[in-house]
Amino acid sequence: MSGITRRQLIQGAAWLAAGAALNLRPLSALAAGGMRFDEYRRCDALELARLVRAGEVSPAELLELAIARTEQVNPSINAVVIKHYEAARRLAGSTIPDGPFRGVPFLLKDLGISMADTVTTHGSRFFREAKAATDDPYVRKARQAGLVIFGKTNSPEFGNNPSTEGTLFGDTRNPWNLDHSAGGSSGGAAAAVAAGILPVAHASDGGGSIRLPASSCGLFGLKPSRDLVPIGDAAGGARGLLSAQHVISRSVRDSAALLDVLAWDNPGQGFGGAEQGTYFAQLQQAPERLRIALMRQPLLDMPVDQVCLDALEDAARLCTELGHEVVEAMPEVDMQAAMQASGTLSVTSLAERIARREAQLGRAVGNDDLEPVNLEMLEWGRQVSAVDYMGAQEGLRQTARDMARFMEGFDLVLSPTMTWAPPPLGVVDMDLPLQEFGPLATRSSVFTVLYNITGQPAMSVPLYWSTEGLPIGVMFAGRFGAERTLLRLAGQLEQARPWFDRLPPV
Amino acid sequence: MSGITRRQLIQGAAWLAAGAALNLRPLSALAAGGMRFDEYRRCDALELARLVRAGEVSPAELLELAIARTEQVNPSINAVVIKHYEAARRLAGSTIPDGPFRGVPFLLKDLGISMADTVTTHGSRFFREAKAATDDPYVRKARQAGLVIFGKTNSPEFGNNPSTEGTLFGDTRNPWNLDHSAGGSSGGAAAAVAAGILPVAHASDGGGSIRLPASSCGLFGLKPSRDLVPIGDAAGGARGLLSAQHVISRSVRDSAALLDVLAWDNPGQGFGGAEQGTYFAQLQQAPERLRIALMRQPLLDMPVDQVCLDALEDAARLCTELGHEVVEAMPEVDMQAAMQASGTLSVTSLAERIARREAQLGRAVGNDDLEPVNLEMLEWGRQVSAVDYMGAQEGLRQTARDMARFMEGFDLVLSPTMTWAPPPLGVVDMDLPLQEFGPLATRSSVFTVLYNITGQPAMSVPLYWSTEGLPIGVMFAGRFGAERTLLRLAGQLEQARPWFDRLPPV
Repeated sequence: MSGITRRQLIQGAAWLAAGAALNLRPLSALAAGGMRFDEYRRCDALELARLVRAGEVSPAELLELAIARTEQVNPSINAVVIKHYEAARRLAGSTIPDGPFRGVPFLLKDLGISMADTVTTHGSRFFREAKAATDDPYVRKARQAGLVIFGKTNSPEFGNNPSTEGTLFGDTRNPWNLDHSAGGSSGGAAAAVAAGILPVAHASDGGGSIRLPASSCGLFGLKPSRDLVPIGDAAGGARGLLSAQHVISRSVRDSAALLDVLAWDNPGQGFGGAEQGTYFAQLQQAPERLRIALMRQPLLDMPVDQVCLDALEDAARLCTELGHEVVEAMPEVDMQAAMQASGTLSVTSLAERIARREAQLGRAVGNDDLEPVNLEMLEWGRQVSAVDYMGAQEGLRQTARDMARFMEGFDLVLSPTMTWAPPPLGVVDMDLPLQEFGPLATRSSVFTVLYNITGQPAMSVPLYWSTEGLPIGVMFAGRFGAERTLLRLAGQLEQARPWFDRLPPV
Repeated sequence: MSGITRRQLIQGAAWLAAGAALNLRPLSALAAGGMRFDEYRRCDALELARLVRAGEVSPAELLELAIARTEQVNPSINAVVIKHYEAARRLAGSTIPDGPFRGVPFLLKDLGISMADTVTTHGSRFFREAKAATDDPYVRKARQAGLVIFGKTNSPEFGNNPSTEGTLFGDTRNPWNLDHSAGGSSGGAAAAVAAGILPVAHASDGGGSIRLPASSCGLFGLKPSRDLVPIGDAAGGARGLLSAQHVISRSVRDSAALLDVLAWDNPGQGFGGAEQGTYFAQLQQAPERLRIALMRQPLLDMPVDQVCLDALEDAARLCTELGHEVVEAMPEVDMQAAMQASGTLSVTSLAERIARREAQLGRAVGNDDLEPVNLEMLEWGRQVSAVDYMGAQEGLRQTARDMARFMEGFDLVLSPTMTWAPPPLGVVDMDLPLQEFGPLATRSSVFTVLYNITGQPAMSVPLYWSTEGLPIGVMFAGRFGAERTLLRLAGQLEQARPWFDRLPPV
C-alpha cells in the first residue's frame, strides 16, 4: 500500500462530483480571471489537486490565495505563528513532486515535528530558535505528496493545554466566536482550516489534540492508531506512546487520502494491508451494520454539560436511522490509574525534552523560560524513576487490554468529544497551579485521552452546533487498527448530514 | 505470511532429501521395531515432523526418546532444569494441533517467557515459585505449530551471564568438554540440542544469549531483528528493546521454518512481506554475490584470541570461494556510549522485574535472594531516572543510525562471535564484584551485543573447531530486517561445510 494512486483519485473525484456530501460544483470559469477566494474555499484539498492537475489553477495561485487569506484573518484568530512564505513561493514556482496533493497549500503545527532549516518552538520561549537539521518522515511524505508547506500553526507550550493559549505567540481564537477557545493543542491548525486559510492542516494528538480542536471548530479530526503514522524524534521519546500525528480537515476524504500518504508503507502489526484496500477506498462503500456502544458519562466522576449530551443523543439517533445498533454500555477501566500512567509518561517526556534542550543550549532552564504549569510538570518529571516509568507503560498496556476486552462486544464506542462547549479563552490557564489546572484541562480531555492511553483510533465528527453557534463534536473510537471502519462510517455520516459548507462568520 | 504451508514443507523435504547439507537417509525400517535413538538423532525437527505425518513414528514415541535421552545425559550436562513430562505425555497421547512441527519435542528456556500453569524462575531463587497464568505469544505459536513442550532449560539468573552458571540449578556443562562453559544465557538450550535431547530449542538473546551458546556448542543460532518475533511481558519492559526470542538449532532450515511460525503474522515496518517469500523458501536459492565487511577487532580495546581469528579467516576464505566479496572494514560507533546505554536498559529492566515480583510476594528482595552481581545491578537500576532511561533509548537509536550508515556499503558484517574459546566453568563468576565481572562478561559478548543495541539480525554459524575440539562460531550480521539474506547465506555455508553430523562425545 504505497499511497493512493492517480486512478483511485480520479475515481474518487467522479464519485464525489456525483455525491451529495461536499456539494462540489464545477468551477468552469476559472481559466478566465484566475480563482476567486469563494471558489478556493468551496474546495477540499483533493478538489484543489484535481484542478491543478487539470491545469485550471496553478500551485502559485493557490499559495497566494492561502497567503492572502492568512494575512486577512490571522490578526483576528492568530492561527499562523511562523511564516515560510518565500520558501513556499520558490517551491510553488519550480518543480513540485508529482504526488496526489501536488500544489495544495499546507501548514505544519509548531509542535513535535521537524522540518529541515525551520524553527519549531513547541510553543515555548525555551525553543524560540530551535532549528531542525532534517525532515521528519511525516514532512518527507507530505513533500512527496506535493503539498506546499508555507508556515506553522499555533500550539500551547508542549501541547500541554486543551486550549491554545500561551505567552510565546499569544492565544488562538475560535473562528466561530472569537472570545472562545479553538481547542488544543492543534488549535492553530483547526482555526486556520475553519477560517478558510486551507482545507486541511497537519495536527497531532497526545491527549485529544486533534479531536478537541476539530470538535471546537466544526471540523473532522481522526487520531490514528498508535504507530500507524511515523513519529519523528521531535515528538519526544515518552510522548511517542501517547501521541499520533495526522491532520484536521473539512472533508472526510481529505483525511482518508492523507492517511494513505502518511501511514507507514509497510504497516506494523494489526493495521491490515493492501487486501483491505486504501483508506480512501473505504469511502466508496457504506459500512456494514455496526454495533456501537453509547458511552454517556466519562470514566471519572465529572459532569457532562447538557449541550454535549444533546449532541450525543442526536448522533446516536442518526446512527440508528442509518441502520446501526446503538447500545448503552460503559467499559470497565480504572481510569484514575490510567490517567496517572499517562500523566507520568507526559511529564517524563517533558523532562527529557528539556534535558536535551539544556544540553543543546549549554544552560539550565530558568523560571522565565516556561509556563508555570510546565515548570511544575518538569519538576515532577525529573523525579520519575525509570522503574516508575516502566510501571506507567505497563499501566497503559493494562488499560489497552481492558478496553480490548470491552471492544470484543462492539465495533465502535460513541461518546461526547468534550464534556463542555468550547470554553471562553482564559479559563484553562497555564498560569494556574497544576492542582487547579489539571481538573479544568480534564473537563476537555477526559473522553479523548482514553484512546491515547489504549492506542485505539478515534475521530471527532462535526454533527451538531449549540444554539449560540458553537460547534459540538461527537467522538467515535474503533478497535486498534480499525481506521477503515471509522472512515466508512464517517463517509456515511458526512453524506447524511453534510457539514462541509457550514462556515464560521470570520 | 501466515507461517509455512504444508506444501512448502513437502517441497522442502524433497529438496533436502536430494541435498547434501544434512545428509538425511531414509529411515525405512522404522515401522518394524520403533525408532532407535541413533535414528532420532539423525533427524532435524522438520524431518521428525515429516516422519510423524507419514505415520512412521508417533509423537508419543518421539517424546519418550527425548525424555530417555534427557534422563541419560542430564546428570552430566545439567541442561534441563524443569520437567513437564506428564503434561507432555498427556498432549502427545491426545490431539496435537496440526501444525508444521506436529509431534516434535520442544523445550523452553527458563527465562523471560510465560507458559500457562508452569513456573519460570529466570534462574533466580526469588522467582522459584513464579507460576504464569497465561501463554506468551511465542508459546501460543509454538503450540499451534504442533511442538510438544516437555520442560525448561537452564539459564543464569536473569540471563545476566554469558556463561550458564548459577546457584539455583547449578552450572550447565558443555557437551563438547564438560569442564567448559556451554555459553549463555541460553546455555541449557544449546547443551540440550548438542547432546541430542532434541534438534531445536527455544532461546532468547538480549546481549548474545542465542549466539554465544550456539557458538560454544557447535550449533546454528540466529537472533532476529528487534520486534520481528513477539516478546511477552515476562521478558521485562526495558529488556524488550535489546532482547529477541527465537531458537538454537542444528539445521538452518529448522531455524528458518520456525521463524515463519514465530514471526508476527503481519510484520512490522521493514520486515518485508509475502512477496519476498517465507524465510524457509530462502533456502531453496543461493544468495546473490554479497559484499561482506570483515571486522577483525571489537569496537572496544580488547584482545581476540588466535583461535577466534583463525576461525574468522577460515570463514572469510570460504565466503570468497563461494563468490562473495569480503572487505576489511570497521564501523565508526562510540561503543563505550552504546554499552553504557545498553547497560542502563538492562539494569533498569532488572529493577522493574524485581519491583513487580516484590509486589507479588508482598516482601522486599533480600541479599540472599539474588546472585551478588545482580544485587549490584539492582542497586544501579533503582537509581536510574526516567530521563536517563530515555537518554539510553536515544543512545541505542544513535548507534543504530551509525551502523545503518555503515551498512549502506555492505550487505553483511562478518566477525568472531566471541573473543575467546568457551572458557572453563567458574571464570565468569556472578560472585565476583561487578567491576571484575563486567570485563570478563564482555570478553564473551563484545561482538554480539552490538546487534542487540542496533536491533539488527545476526547469526552464529558453526564452521570451525579448535584443536582441543571446542566449537568456535563466527557471526554474520545483516541490515535491519534482512533475515532473508542471512538465511540464504547460512544455507549456502551449511551445504558447503556441513556441520549437522558433527556430534559431541557426550
